[in-house]
Amino acid sequence: MKIAASIVLAATAAILSTPASAQFAKPEDAVKYRQSVMTVMSTHFGRIGAMANGKAPYDAKAAIDNAQIVAAMAKLPWPGFSADTEKVSVQNRAKPEVWSNAAKFKEDGDHLVSETGKLLAAAQTNSLDNLKTAFASTGKACKSCHDDFRKEAK
Amino acid sequence: MKIAASIVLAATAAILSTPASAQFAKPEDAVKYRQSVMTVMSTHFGRIGAMANGKAPYDAKAAIDNAQIVAAMAKLPWPGFSADTEKVSVQNRAKPEVWSNAAKFKEDGDHLVSETGKLLAAAQTNSLDNLKTAFASTGKACKSCHDDFRKEAK
Repeated sequence: MKIAASIVLAATAAILSTPASAQFAKPEDAVKYRQSVMTVMSTHFGRIGAMANGKAPYDAKAAIDNAQIVAAMAKLPWPGFSADTEKVSVQNRAKPEVWSNAAKFKEDGDHLVSETGKLLAAAQTNSLDNLKTAFASTGKACKSCHDDFRKEAK
Repeated sequence: MKIAASIVLAATAAILSTPASAQFAKPEDAVKYRQSVMTVMSTHFGRIGAMANGKAPYDAKAAIDNAQIVAAMAKLPWPGFSADTEKVSVQNRAKPEVWSNAAKFKEDGDHLVSETGKLLAAAQTNSLDNLKTAFASTGKACKSCHDDFRKEAK
């Protein structure tokens, strides 16, 4: 059990310590990319929220379209948190825990991917009740990770 | 013919003059959203380009994954160019022609959607040659629209 955990930790550390240069020309690009992914994700998640909270009329097709984008975006930002972005000078809200508690950060990221997959599945049932339930669960996944790994907005 | 063109123009004008508030809380959010979409799109388009130009090894699955994101993003930014973003104070590179030549801008946007759909189809053939051809065509669609509607970077 301890060995398995160590292997997971080592693998996670390896992923997170891969220089952004492997995927991005410079660390600043990695930050801009991950922030952009989050902006696109939150915009479309917000549109589902408006339906779930009765602020916009329920539109089953729009819910699916938005959930598809949310689910696709949830898979993307993680390589943008490469080790060489920890000390980057561009404004960003990542806490040091992203790197010091990389295993938990990875777990939270995986949880978001899983929850947004369920959100899409819920949207595809064409049931507003299902959408509301999945929206709430996904929102908890966002908040939990933000509480631990994102600084307060200034 | 003229009547049809007028109808298209009127419809386009109606879309572009819809306040961002219809979809965004404020015009600044619309700008941030469209810029974020472009960042995500260009990052993944760039990864296809690296394969097409021999700077990264060809990986058929990665090409498809990247093309899926590019094709999905190509559909998104247009509502972010709502009329109330023309005079917005946040830094952006949209030329006035986005609104003064809205019909052409719409045509260019539709062309990008079409080209990125072909790019995805090309990636799905698992042929690097097909990918190269579609990458070049899609790149032309990007450039043509940027030449007409995007200011030079400062």
